Amino acid sequence: ERRPPHRARRHVPGTVTQPHPLTNRSTNEQLRTYEQGVRAAFDQIVPTLKQISALHCEPDFTQRAQQLAQRELGFELPNGILDDAWIAGLDLRRLYAWSLFETYRRMADDFFARDPLRGRETTAFDEFLQSCGFHLMDITPCADGRLAHAISYVLRLPIGAVRRKSYAGTLFDVEETVEKWVEVEHQRFREGRPNTADTSTRYLKVVMYHFSSLDPEHQGCAAHGSDDGLAARAGLERLHHFRQAIENSFCCGASVALLLIGLDTDTDAIRVHLPDERGEMDLNQSVDAQALYDQTHNLTPEAARQGILEAVCAAAPDTADEGMVRLVARLVENNLSQIEYVRTLQGGGYPDAGHAERFMAVGIGFEEIQLRNLTYFAYLHTVEEGAPDLDVGCRIFDGLNVSHGLPIPVVVRFDYHGRVPGARERAVERARRLDRALADRFRVRVQQGLLHRMLVVRDCDAGSGLEVVSTSVDPQPAGGH
Amino acid sequence: ERRPPHRARRHVPGTVTQPHPLTNRSTNEQLRTYEQGVRAAFDQIVPTLKQISALHCEPDFTQRAQQLAQRELGFELPNGILDDAWIAGLDLRRLYAWSLFETYRRMADDFFARDPLRGRETTAFDEFLQSCGFHLMDITPCADGRLAHAISYVLRLPIGAVRRKSYAGTLFDVEETVEKWVEVEHQRFREGRPNTADTSTRYLKVVMYHFSSLDPEHQGCAAHGSDDGLAARAGLERLHHFRQAIENSFCCGASVALLLIGLDTDTDAIRVHLPDERGEMDLNQSVDAQALYDQTHNLTPEAARQGILEAVCAAAPDTADEGMVRLVARLVENNLSQIEYVRTLQGGGYPDAGHAERFMAVGIGFEEIQLRNLTYFAYLHTVEEGAPDLDVGCRIFDGLNVSHGLPIPVVVRFDYHGRVPGARERAVERARRLDRALADRFRVRVQQGLLHRMLVVRDCDAGSGLEVVSTSVDPQPAGGH
Ligand SMILES: [Zn+2]
Ligand SMILES: [Zn+2]
Ligand SMILES: [Zn+2]
Ligand SMILES: [Zn+2]
Repeated sequence: ERRPPHRARRHVPGTVTQPHPLTNRSTNEQLRTYEQGVRAAFDQIVPTLKQISALHCEPDFTQRAQQLAQRELGFELPNGILDDAWIAGLDLRRLYAWSLFETYRRMADDFFARDPLRGRETTAFDEFLQSCGFHLMDITPCADGRLAHAISYVLRLPIGAVRRKSYAGTLFDVEETVEKWVEVEHQRFREGRPNTADTSTRYLKVVMYHFSSLDPEHQGCAAHGSDDGLAARAGLERLHHFRQAIENSFCCGASVALLLIGLDTDTDAIRVHLPDERGEMDLNQSVDAQALYDQTHNLTPEAARQGILEAVCAAAPDTADEGMVRLVARLVENNLSQIEYVRTLQGGGYPDAGHAERFMAVGIGFEEIQLRNLTYFAYLHTVEEGAPDLDVGCRIFDGLNVSHGLPIPVVVRFDYHGRVPGARERAVERARRLDRALADRFRVRVQQGLLHRMLVVRDCDAGSGLEVVSTSVDPQPAGGH
Repeated sequence: ERRPPHRARRHVPGTVTQPHPLTNRSTNEQLRTYEQGVRAAFDQIVPTLKQISALHCEPDFTQRAQQLAQRELGFELPNGILDDAWIAGLDLRRLYAWSLFETYRRMADDFFARDPLRGRETTAFDEFLQSCGFHLMDITPCADGRLAHAISYVLRLPIGAVRRKSYAGTLFDVEETVEKWVEVEHQRFREGRPNTADTSTRYLKVVMYHFSSLDPEHQGCAAHGSDDGLAARAGLERLHHFRQAIENSFCCGASVALLLIGLDTDTDAIRVHLPDERGEMDLNQSVDAQALYDQTHNLTPEAARQGILEAVCAAAPDTADEGMVRLVARLVENNLSQIEYVRTLQGGGYPDAGHAERFMAVGIGFEEIQLRNLTYFAYLHTVEEGAPDLDVGCRIFDGLNVSHGLPIPVVVRFDYHGRVPGARERAVERARRLDRALADRFRVRVQQGLLHRMLVVRDCDAGSGLEVVSTSVDPQPAGGH
């Protein structure tokens, strides 16, 4: 019910009877199983609460509600809220937020415990990447929820082998990225990881902007007013700024490699702009995975792979380096599986062209969120800096949730390095401070029970799951403040 | 008038007839000339505005006021404010803030143009520091304005040769310092600066806490409730956290050296707690520069120096390293000049034991502020994170200024690296965002004209002066927002 209606027109109808020779069908099945499982868990919440609501005048209500919750959601609800229903009425907003947070928590813990997308199997890609001349691939997709699956699904890369750092409109923080570059160089110098500093590989910074082939004027990148050209140019400019910052700040020919990728959020097909030896990219020149899917569909795997390589070469400037061409050919080949994944969805494509996020993710972290359109991200340290992103998020959820009487669920999260003494305490304090500022900015919604928060932190050195600091849905301690 | 009354009792009266054999009298003279010049410029503002105010019913008021301002302050006032006085009354609050900002701006530009404290003459100290086994000295004094002169005056070090990063209560940011450590290591690896990475020198992190010998219960560190023991322990704990963070995060025996210094803000005498080989320090064990000043006062320079070295050795744990002992002996010797500087002040000591700051400095930067009790610092990126420090600052200035009808002058400042494309624009945007948040938090004072701001940025790569972005005292453009 919360989804926008299916779109009638499909970009490439009926091309999926025969799989493409280079797509990985078993991986597609695994990815689909994972995605459907997670979505089903979230989508069960509303129908289950409706049933529970219908029960609420029955005698043994609490018991029956718990049985139902256990059966449909896989967990019990807080007894307190159910027990008080006879006198206070059933607080369905709190139950909804509580259930959503619990579902998210279980999803996250499962992700860190099981590695369901096999993101930790990094050796093969690490080696391939280095053979192409790069020691780190650092990707900034737009923070739009429709790109949350960029690494694991769209590009089919193990998340453990790349750095993902999303920014609204791909406008990544140059200073922060320079710091990361220094950290990586230091590691190469000091520890020889991922390779020694004298190996002539480069740090590869990738920007992934996005557009919509079905509804280009409305469903493109909101941060750039759905202007595809602007989105691409902004990403490219930021890449150039980063390269210049490195070259100006460090001597001895320090430099980085750059790459610009566009994503069609309706088909998940990528188009890649190849750089010349100086990192210059032509925004009118790209290799298009969607077209290549069709062009190489009836070939043998070898011939299809050769066709892709030739197309990438043709789209590359004369001075493009050979490793970059090989890497891009691999990304395009990986993307074919995702193109097929989308084409073989029930209905022949994504049912949700627009926003359909289930919760807001605010703070730093969220590595476990690898599914499209599940989450609205606002990566930030403070409300003061991130207010525009938070305001956009609230407006989106006013439409998705508040207009239907549902609260906006916000997960406030800060990851920390457990190796650093005091880091956990500082992350907790940071989460609490952010929460106070958030509750202050969205005071009215909070007072109406229409905005709930769960505060979590995570030790990213330990590789363990989430630690819940507090939530606004749990009963507040008597006399607390 | 804004100064608290002189204190009657002086710690060590009458010991300054004869200079100490190791003090540098000509440097003391230069430092005193600089300090008096800067203070006089600030202290001229109120008397001059009083005179101007008295003139304000005269005919040619604007002209006469400008002559007076030029003569007494060295600059003219904005004509607009003077011209409007006949009808709107003379806006003395705005004139005060305007004059203060102009005085600060001139002081800062002079500092960067002339290097009056010779902070860029770093070679000798760099070499000495490395000979002691350290490649960088990174000092965190408390952000209290009474420690703003810690580097140039108290320790007599060239500011260009050390890193100063102040924090309220010396509670420095461990993560930020780890990043700095990585940056320094990277520079050693990549550029051999200040020495190559295979040289077995260490990064030296110093904390300088403070206390008051004259009024220990009230004029100690406010962040620790004037509890000296607590202030020292908190600094020591932060140092240990930093060392542990480095050791846990990096392999191959990465480590750092630590040092804890206490400052008596009444006499500027330091006491130094020497670390053993593991960086452990005994808070009850220290070498006291004040006592050494007296004990070595009648000796020859050689004998005095030997006496200091012996005292430092005696205060050092058995396993303390020899380079650390030599460094501390040097710091103590340097400090003797400052002890004499304070003892030879008119009145035999500082007239201001408590707060006497002229303005608040908010943001990141302020390298040029090297004078005691001139400035209340709130180093921060956002009001959200720095609110407690800002609130303390406003309370202090409510007493110093607002209670006398004077506005609180706030300099909002962000330094940036001009080598990094877009960095200036981001610094400006940061200053504007902070200013909006500040004006929002202190709304009432702003509306009453009792809190004024000047926004400045500075390219720290260029070594040039300040760039003024805007001020709240300049006439706002008609129809502006
Ligand atoms: Zn976008
Ligand atoms: Zn981490
Ligand atoms: Zn203090
Ligand atoms: Zn700088």
